[in-house]
Amino acid sequence: MDAEIIAVGSELLTPQRTDTNSLYLTEKLNSLGILVRFKTIVGDSKEDLQVVIRAALERTPLIVLTGGLGPTEDDLTREVTAEVLGLPLHEVAELRRRIEDRYARLGRPMPENNLRQAQVPEGSEWLENRNGTAPGIWIEHQDHLVVLLPGPPRELEPLFEATCVPRLERVASGARIKTRVYKVVGLPESEVDQLIAPLYRPYQNPVTTILAAMGTIEVHLRARAATDQEAEARLAELGDKIELVLGDHVYSSKGETLEEVVGMYLVMRQKTLAVAESCTGGLLAERLTRVSGSSSYFLGGAVCYTNQMKTRWAGVPADLIQAHGAVSKPVAQALAEGVRARAGASIGVGITGIAGPKGGSSDKPVGLVFVALADDRATQVREFRFPGARERVRYWATQMALEMVRRRIRD
Amino acid sequence: MDAEIIAVGSELLTPQRTDTNSLYLTEKLNSLGILVRFKTIVGDSKEDLQVVIRAALERTPLIVLTGGLGPTEDDLTREVTAEVLGLPLHEVAELRRRIEDRYARLGRPMPENNLRQAQVPEGSEWLENRNGTAPGIWIEHQDHLVVLLPGPPRELEPLFEATCVPRLERVASGARIKTRVYKVVGLPESEVDQLIAPLYRPYQNPVTTILAAMGTIEVHLRARAATDQEAEARLAELGDKIELVLGDHVYSSKGETLEEVVGMYLVMRQKTLAVAESCTGGLLAERLTRVSGSSSYFLGGAVCYTNQMKTRWAGVPADLIQAHGAVSKPVAQALAEGVRARAGASIGVGITGIAGPKGGSSDKPVGLVFVALADDRATQVREFRFPGARERVRYWATQMALEMVRRRIRD
Repeated sequence: MDAEIIAVGSELLTPQRTDTNSLYLTEKLNSLGILVRFKTIVGDSKEDLQVVIRAALERTPLIVLTGGLGPTEDDLTREVTAEVLGLPLHEVAELRRRIEDRYARLGRPMPENNLRQAQVPEGSEWLENRNGTAPGIWIEHQDHLVVLLPGPPRELEPLFEATCVPRLERVASGARIKTRVYKVVGLPESEVDQLIAPLYRPYQNPVTTILAAMGTIEVHLRARAATDQEAEARLAELGDKIELVLGDHVYSSKGETLEEVVGMYLVMRQKTLAVAESCTGGLLAERLTRVSGSSSYFLGGAVCYTNQMKTRWAGVPADLIQAHGAVSKPVAQALAEGVRARAGASIGVGITGIAGPKGGSSDKPVGLVFVALADDRATQVREFRFPGARERVRYWATQMALEMVRRRIRD
Repeated sequence: MDAEIIAVGSELLTPQRTDTNSLYLTEKLNSLGILVRFKTIVGDSKEDLQVVIRAALERTPLIVLTGGLGPTEDDLTREVTAEVLGLPLHEVAELRRRIEDRYARLGRPMPENNLRQAQVPEGSEWLENRNGTAPGIWIEHQDHLVVLLPGPPRELEPLFEATCVPRLERVASGARIKTRVYKVVGLPESEVDQLIAPLYRPYQNPVTTILAAMGTIEVHLRARAATDQEAEARLAELGDKIELVLGDHVYSSKGETLEEVVGMYLVMRQKTLAVAESCTGGLLAERLTRVSGSSSYFLGGAVCYTNQMKTRWAGVPADLIQAHGAVSKPVAQALAEGVRARAGASIGVGITGIAGPKGGSSDKPVGLVFVALADDRATQVREFRFPGARERVRYWATQMALEMVRRRIRD
């Protein structure tokens, strides 16, 4: 069964935004053996949406529409789909009750147009949305399966997982697709390709793709087989060889982020961490604390944006800053050692640098960053020169800091 | 003249990649007064590409195809477009010569299939590609204008600029498109719509779209007119009314982020800021320091992930934490006042809460967050209960903290 994904929303036709829900959906559909053959993006226009749905009905059996299920005037997906399929809408009492209850709980009057979200086309099923007000809708009509999903990813993704994946498992063909992703840090894309091309080239299945994300190279393998076990065996045959060649540059093969891997190592070794950041402005602490449960190993972070705060929060001697400048190897070292002592942590990290776009000099250019790591054995300081914009410099600095922590604890 | 953009390439139908050339093209087309009404993504399949081009011919006068012009077997755009339009392909001597010259210079034998890149449909013009081997193709056929462009952005963009923009200026209607975006904080989407629907409903031009992003509602207006001035006047006519009704909930009308607006206010009032965060883990400091130049008003942030660090970095009395718990109104207040004093800032912000998914209780559930703001006049503490996942709770907490700062300084 092939699919078309239709993303609805005029904002997706602007120069600023485009559809990204289809990436998630494609991954899920592929893993069920369903191929995405077309993707269409259309605005909040009744006529255009009609044209697009009609075209999709002529070319694909499974149509997934995302967005346009909200309560406002320009949310048209529900009404137009029902109209094109020739199905009248009717109100679901349970959905009406839920909407009324929610407004009662909030103590707010319910805008009348919210009740549109209680309507579904005749003969369809509604799909529970635990993270928003618009339910999904599952329509089996003649030879087609048409699925309507809310646009916000935090609503769409759990809804799809909980309600659509089990239903699609029943109707899909039985071919299985499995994927494996190796995440690599510390090697450029071309070097990764050079190392592993001789391994993957003989294989048509799995398909290998190399992708450069910020601070990480990802190697994607996608295998197709009649059963999950057979697909997994194909992945293992090529994947294990690739993993061996890339060695300890691979930090993850199960989708974990670098901060999650660092967290797992810290828990395993019963170590704690504190950080003192300047140019990264809290991004390192923020990445570490994205991980649920990070409070068991992360004690705290000091974002020292002035010299005074470097002294006050991380105990960096004022005369050291005076002598070497805030962006210097000795200050990075003092930040790491100081924050480690202040927080009583096993490991301290210090970052100081110039994120740009301003503030650089010929001596200390934009992109210059010192990252220090202190533990009970030693303090290591590395100097980096990251190319690119402010955001990129900041991200790479935290990526390298996390990588230094990973290597130190793993050893 | 409206347009459809068709991106051709099987890699654009994988979970890892999607079409992004259309963002560049949309910006260029819009500035010429051309609206993009549809975007389609299709793989390297002859049949699918035929279906997609036929559908586009039925609904839009201008069709821009990107990708699939390379020399390999699965590059089909040239052949399939010619076939669907009923135009035979013929070889252009100049293009043949260029390809042969290039291989001669490289001292390599020319693969025969490279000569496909010397073919164009009858009656069309070829467009010079200074950064690659595949020329673009400009086809005016009956009531349609069909443009074929190479896929790599570094080929497509200069080619489009040099060859298509001047041609389109001649054929485009002369209409201009201008947009305005209002960003709103503190009101739910449905309430924004209820407030402004009576204002925008009478207008077909500008077109109004309401968009919910995390922590922000965006109102997009897009006006179309014969001149820039007239388009701006149309935007102003509706936009000023909308701005008046939404009042101080609008924090930006020129695309600025909330942290940029807060930064501008701080600079204007010559105030400085320091923050002490617990559950947001550095996200507030990180957002503030995304803004280039933030070092002129942001002094520092303490990410106090343990009780001890709340005391050590922000001077929160240990017995206060003991008495009320780390997630409490008094501790939020002490964090704000403490970090303000430690950093010597005009304004201090304190955040403490439970981001989840674990750590909640019936008394203090996941999503409970206290945000405090201290300045020389008073300390204000607000209690929030944010629904949703960890990431969302954290983001909303920083959004409300920034909004509290915005309102305090603006007053």
